[in-house]
Amino acid sequence: MIQSHADRTLVRVQDLTPEKADQLIWLRARVHTSRAKGKQCFLVLRQQQFNVQALVAVGDRASKQMVKFAANITKESIVDVEALVRKVEQKIESCSQQDVELHIERIFVISQAEPRLPLQLEDAVRADGEGEEEGRATVNQDTRLDNRVIDLRTTTSQAIFRLQSGVCQLFRDTLTKKGFVEIQTPKIISAASEGGANVFTVSYFKTSAYLAQSPQLYKQMCICADFDKVFCVGPVFRAEDSNTHRHLTEFVGLDIEMAFNYHYHEVIDSITDTMVQIFKGLRDNFQTEIQTVNKQFPSEPFKFLEPTLRLEFTEAVAMLREAGVEMGDEDDLSTPNEKLLGRLVKEKYDTDFYVLDKYPLAVRPFYTMPDPSNPKYSNSYDMFMRGEEILSGAQRIHDAQLLTERALHHQIDLEKIKAYIDSFRYGAPPHGGGGIGLERVCMLYLGLHNVRQTSMFPRDPKRLTP
Amino acid sequence: MIQSHADRTLVRVQDLTPEKADQLIWLRARVHTSRAKGKQCFLVLRQQQFNVQALVAVGDRASKQMVKFAANITKESIVDVEALVRKVEQKIESCSQQDVELHIERIFVISQAEPRLPLQLEDAVRADGEGEEEGRATVNQDTRLDNRVIDLRTTTSQAIFRLQSGVCQLFRDTLTKKGFVEIQTPKIISAASEGGANVFTVSYFKTSAYLAQSPQLYKQMCICADFDKVFCVGPVFRAEDSNTHRHLTEFVGLDIEMAFNYHYHEVIDSITDTMVQIFKGLRDNFQTEIQTVNKQFPSEPFKFLEPTLRLEFTEAVAMLREAGVEMGDEDDLSTPNEKLLGRLVKEKYDTDFYVLDKYPLAVRPFYTMPDPSNPKYSNSYDMFMRGEEILSGAQRIHDAQLLTERALHHQIDLEKIKAYIDSFRYGAPPHGGGGIGLERVCMLYLGLHNVRQTSMFPRDPKRLTP
Repeated sequence: MIQSHADRTLVRVQDLTPEKADQLIWLRARVHTSRAKGKQCFLVLRQQQFNVQALVAVGDRASKQMVKFAANITKESIVDVEALVRKVEQKIESCSQQDVELHIERIFVISQAEPRLPLQLEDAVRADGEGEEEGRATVNQDTRLDNRVIDLRTTTSQAIFRLQSGVCQLFRDTLTKKGFVEIQTPKIISAASEGGANVFTVSYFKTSAYLAQSPQLYKQMCICADFDKVFCVGPVFRAEDSNTHRHLTEFVGLDIEMAFNYHYHEVIDSITDTMVQIFKGLRDNFQTEIQTVNKQFPSEPFKFLEPTLRLEFTEAVAMLREAGVEMGDEDDLSTPNEKLLGRLVKEKYDTDFYVLDKYPLAVRPFYTMPDPSNPKYSNSYDMFMRGEEILSGAQRIHDAQLLTERALHHQIDLEKIKAYIDSFRYGAPPHGGGGIGLERVCMLYLGLHNVRQTSMFPRDPKRLTP
Repeated sequence: MIQSHADRTLVRVQDLTPEKADQLIWLRARVHTSRAKGKQCFLVLRQQQFNVQALVAVGDRASKQMVKFAANITKESIVDVEALVRKVEQKIESCSQQDVELHIERIFVISQAEPRLPLQLEDAVRADGEGEEEGRATVNQDTRLDNRVIDLRTTTSQAIFRLQSGVCQLFRDTLTKKGFVEIQTPKIISAASEGGANVFTVSYFKTSAYLAQSPQLYKQMCICADFDKVFCVGPVFRAEDSNTHRHLTEFVGLDIEMAFNYHYHEVIDSITDTMVQIFKGLRDNFQTEIQTVNKQFPSEPFKFLEPTLRLEFTEAVAMLREAGVEMGDEDDLSTPNEKLLGRLVKEKYDTDFYVLDKYPLAVRPFYTMPDPSNPKYSNSYDMFMRGEEILSGAQRIHDAQLLTERALHHQIDLEKIKAYIDSFRYGAPPHGGGGIGLERVCMLYLGLHNVRQTSMFPRDPKRLTP
């Protein structure tokens, strides 16, 4: 229990600059490292990505006992210190606060860490290969995830998730400015929204229900309900037994749906502009976070064009064939072909972000609008970052009759999607949209290689904890 | 399929003002009502909450056939019209655009509604008792919810959900300004987060899992992971067979968790200030929406104090006893007693929002910090709007040892919450927070009487669809 010290002001580590020199301050921070040396103990005190050097030395203000006490405080413990801020002659390269150090006069342990940490923070931020010759350890992914609370304390994790928070904010702010309304859609649903495969079943009182694979049907229903332009941010669930670097069983969907006037490219333009605003916002406001992540995971800066490059599916097939790939006109792209296409597009157009438009109808969900000029294709699109899909979208069928035909063609039980189909019986505007995977956007923007790095507590077929 | 008319600009109904008089414009809207009268057909065209009178009359620009065609367009169909804007002599009281009407020259049906609507919009916005003498219908709740897509088109629903979108935005903006970071927490979890009762079970590949009853454990883990102040907005699930006006099995939680310095009242102050910012934002920016809802569901304006009133549990018990209620010192408040207390507080302090602090320890979850000065009580609180609970929160135990003791006392299987308890072993700051029910906040702010009115697609033990 902590006594009340309402009169005390706690200073933030990031505010410890030469302007504070010779002031006596209070600070709460973690003990990042500690090193006793004769009559002195050097500590590095940390708050998130910021740290400062501190010193307890035997003298007027500190006894020998106090130095010993300080030296015995376990790493990662949280302490309150009263200390004098001192300018230093030589920059402290190893700390974020390079121009000052703290001369500690009082120190209290607020929360003591157990002496044996399951992983060392300095190991967890080491770049691949770095320090290998000296036999320095890195931390494997399962150890990180098993001890996520400690792994999340690293500068890299702090930067990743602050940037992720920024992506959500930029997404919403951009759409709100465009007149979109935020909606909340149910996750427990009575029928599988996209056909029936890969859906989790929930016991629901005396019956059973499903977890929504996307807010698809509900955001469309909001369009039929006159909300005109809507977005939602929320969990989506996929019972897919895919153990890859880019699949999760639960991820965060950034979803958009909007009525358009004359052409579904109005929707593509709205979405690509939103993505461009996100990219610009990250570039302009999250440079520190990007550079922090790059230190451990180097990558090229993310490139994008304005306006966004839009290719048609047939063009992509031609490019791939020219590069030696054999594929049919109406085959979907395999993951390796998507990646190859990304490299070809990067070479030719110098962009890490583009739209692939007009997918073959056969490879898209039942509610996708066929291309009126060629029924083998459809008014649908994917968007890619660094050669990996981050969004799937389309113009949707807004006519109950055509929707019924297409659902039957896909052998979907009409009874189960009755409420959805009925939504289109009382006037529905032409509309389209798409769903973006938040974790993938963060992974690919930062040039990371595993989506688990951008999910705080990832869920996959083999991981349900912590 | 719609042809491309990229050259056409569609005007919004709300922009149809006298400044547009004598202009020929294009407009897309729903046919709200239609009334043929000799050689004329009067239409009301609607976009969300806005509508305008329009006229097709036999003459230079319109044939007899066209009038007949217009008269036969079903209500709720979506049409494109080309029309001349005309100022009117006498205000059109029944429309939002009172100063102009449209003289239609061309009309196309974009999407035709079926002739028989499952409910009439004018019935769905009728206030209780209004028009009863003339035998006018109102629409009961199940009919509304069964046909939610149409019910959501009413001015009342449009206003409710635009205001709800505003609550989320105000919540996030206020917290972002205070330095909070948005987090995303998993909804599929391996162990019931709050003890085990009332939790939905999910089939998870070859094992089973649960749906999170709150992000509680995860937001606390983020505090242990140095995020300092976090919030999240997302679905929470309660497998509670409660069929009341205020219970849903799935609702949207607005969650807050933060480290504090010396006293958990710092947390209460942060939360109450956030609520006050929401109330002010709604009052200042959503007055149209509030008044629209009030037309159908009259209620007193929502009152709040600055600073927010904070009462202690023992004071509340004393007030209730004085009002004739018999209850023990450590009994929890029943729902009727909460409501009565709300009325007593309103009478005495003239506020619809207050905090009740220091609940008996026995009625709170295992992770609640006991009151250091009286172990029968705890550092926990609820917040109330118009006498109903909208938030439950507390200082949390941040010591693994004490947390273990309290979990055992509550007969919780320690093995199942191991990852959670372990989070506190490596240094954890004192912290607290709370979870707010979005739908309840909207319901109570607007003075509505059923939480299903503020959930787009509500879920309760008996409703899973649409």
